[in-house]
Amino acid sequence: MITFTTDFGTSDWFVGVMKGVALGIAPRARLVDITHDIRPGDVRGGAFALMAVCRYFPAGTVHVAVVDPGVGSQRRAIAVQTQHAFFVGPDNGVLSWALNREKVESIRQIENTTYFLKPLSRTFHGRDVFAPVAAHLQRGVSLKSLGRELHDYCRIPWPDPKVGPGQLRGEIVYVDRFGNGITNLEARPAAADSSARGEGRGIATRLDPRWLGKGAGTACVVTGRRKVHFTLAEFYAAVPPGEPVAVPGSSGFLELALNGGSAATQFGIEIGDEVIVS
Amino acid sequence: MITFTTDFGTSDWFVGVMKGVALGIAPRARLVDITHDIRPGDVRGGAFALMAVCRYFPAGTVHVAVVDPGVGSQRRAIAVQTQHAFFVGPDNGVLSWALNREKVESIRQIENTTYFLKPLSRTFHGRDVFAPVAAHLQRGVSLKSLGRELHDYCRIPWPDPKVGPGQLRGEIVYVDRFGNGITNLEARPAAADSSARGEGRGIATRLDPRWLGKGAGTACVVTGRRKVHFTLAEFYAAVPPGEPVAVPGSSGFLELALNGGSAATQFGIEIGDEVIVS
Amino acid sequence: MITFTTDFGTSDWFVGVMKGVALGIAPRARLVDITHDIRPGDVRGGAFALMAVCRYFPAGTVHVAVVDPGVGSQRRAIAVQTQHAFFVGPDNGVLSWALNREKVESIRQIENTTYFLKPLSRTFHGRDVFAPVAAHLQRGVSLKSLGRELHDYCRIPWPDPKVGPGQLRGEIVYVDRFGNGITNLEARPAAADSSARGEGRGIATRLDPRWLGKGAGTACVVTGRRKVHFTLAEFYAAVPPGEPVAVPGSSGFLELALNGGSAATQFGIEIGDEVIVS
Repeated sequence: MITFTTDFGTSDWFVGVMKGVALGIAPRARLVDITHDIRPGDVRGGAFALMAVCRYFPAGTVHVAVVDPGVGSQRRAIAVQTQHAFFVGPDNGVLSWALNREKVESIRQIENTTYFLKPLSRTFHGRDVFAPVAAHLQRGVSLKSLGRELHDYCRIPWPDPKVGPGQLRGEIVYVDRFGNGITNLEARPAAADSSARGEGRGIATRLDPRWLGKGAGTACVVTGRRKVHFTLAEFYAAVPPGEPVAVPGSSGFLELALNGGSAATQFGIEIGDEVIVS
Repeated sequence: MITFTTDFGTSDWFVGVMKGVALGIAPRARLVDITHDIRPGDVRGGAFALMAVCRYFPAGTVHVAVVDPGVGSQRRAIAVQTQHAFFVGPDNGVLSWALNREKVESIRQIENTTYFLKPLSRTFHGRDVFAPVAAHLQRGVSLKSLGRELHDYCRIPWPDPKVGPGQLRGEIVYVDRFGNGITNLEARPAAADSSARGEGRGIATRLDPRWLGKGAGTACVVTGRRKVHFTLAEFYAAVPPGEPVAVPGSSGFLELALNGGSAATQFGIEIGDEVIVS
Repeated sequence: MITFTTDFGTSDWFVGVMKGVALGIAPRARLVDITHDIRPGDVRGGAFALMAVCRYFPAGTVHVAVVDPGVGSQRRAIAVQTQHAFFVGPDNGVLSWALNREKVESIRQIENTTYFLKPLSRTFHGRDVFAPVAAHLQRGVSLKSLGRELHDYCRIPWPDPKVGPGQLRGEIVYVDRFGNGITNLEARPAAADSSARGEGRGIATRLDPRWLGKGAGTACVVTGRRKVHFTLAEFYAAVPPGEPVAVPGSSGFLELALNGGSAATQFGIEIGDEVIVS
């Protein structure tokens, strides 16, 4: 299986042509689109989407992520093998939030042109490098044949929440299509922990599950000069329609939502806005 | 085969992750997107799309429809087996317009957590309930193993047309991407009837095919305080470019269109607007 | 393999139902979306997208292109076999830019209703004609069984660049999702030529590769009453962020771009704008 996470959009032919190239090399590969509507050049958005999905795919899946404003320049391309999957993309951090939660086994620079499409363009490595390399990996080409070993990959710093007396401070890291503001505050049902695979680094702060649905606290977001309060609850419809609600979201983080509406539109929530749970 | 009709959009990872879960369980399933751009929470829009497509899929297809503003609350989830296919989704009416036209054989509440993804989130049953259940059905799990038998499903009332002296009164039920206003007035080529599968309930009024292309009548829509007249014809290009035309649409209903343009934009047509054919 | 290039959008069920029909006939076909977001009725946009992708698909692929404002009228439907692939669509020029670059072996009118879905609608030949015909071709039905032989297909004139003393004059032919203005001026790395398949007609003018990355020239676009200069370079990031740059694009043509932004938005570039390289 090969997944694609890109900022190519779907209004042009970019995604289709990547798939044509991949299927020409690996005719039996299953191709799954994660999304192609990452905002152009938004490496963090791509990193978040990939992190949110990769644990749900079968072992051996090859994940391709191409949000690549530096295409054609000297930025490296990398392929990474973890205990569970393969990751292919530019080494600009787009893979890093997913890799932070995986057991990394090997990192290679993608430089062996044997596996590239020729002639190699300088503007579309999704088609000419990443799709064919992913297809070759899916067919069993070994990671080490792609190029020299690397000892690390480019990381985008994850904004760690700050724990204060009686409160947690975090921020909005993603706004989804429903207008939900996803925070960097982990809020997972307790049972989730046991099934989580190796989390090498990173995100330790979890929201106390006892806070949820007990009326014991609220989350508030500071957006512009305005402060908006959200009731902590377990699901959107736990509050009346039109009311703000903060729920443990499906990606494992606290989400600020509006039952039946868009919190982002209603309150102007943006990535980077401060979130305080108390 | 498994189809997906949702309001998840394609700008986030929601659809991709559902597919990862489904393919993890049923690696050989063919997955087909109907649409993911139902307006957020628009259960009727989802119901119409599913009704429009399900007859065109091979027998045994599993149709998943997730427009589910009540996710996490006490609303039921159901799986339905008809003579022709399987339907999986929340029991909020999103399946009902499709089911009205099928021979229903069995309805089950989805409650056996054996077939769920664990841990179960309260906000994303598409990923945690509907995708895995559909994949298990596709692999041959029996409907009855999913949960207790139900005797009916939640229905959204279909707006029946009104027949008056020399005229038919209906309404706009869907506006498509081309700006065509699809009505609730059946307008099918006569030959269509013989191939229609069991239509358990519902929509009996058919447009007299002799009206079409004969200049014998017009359709008009009342939108806001304005009344717009459309020539009845058999296809869009039967009238000059820029002219309004009412054609028997591909989903089996009379459509109000503008040849070469958007009737919805041009005339402000909206869902619920009254349509009179005389 | 079957590819789809349409203006159906993805917000309705049109694409999904085409795939259901195709898979009902050819259950093992691999289906690849090129794009469904060609502007409604924009035959040239569809022609460009298809031309940009078809060489990247394996031999024997069936390419379906449906941008078909004349659906239901007397416009012909055609199927074309080339040395490399099959092409199916309305005979309104949408196939022509791709076919201009292929070795055409046979052209047939699609008229044998044996291969149509019944009842045949007058408004959705994507579902009722093109998808089933493509699926039958994929399964091995011969082209000649589809209908009478034709000796040519409808062509959209390709805007040939004009060579003047010390300069090339072309125009913008496509604006992509990144806001890059793609021109009709060929600009391919030299190595690309050897791998190009038979180019029966058309586009001979190539940009001198020595101009690129040498500071030896600029491209400028005349948009409205404004003239904007772009530095010729090999990739976007060769100029500082926010700077205009003209690069040999991945589809083989010179592209006018803004490093890290949208040239189309910034400068108001539109299809048809004149481009002068000197």
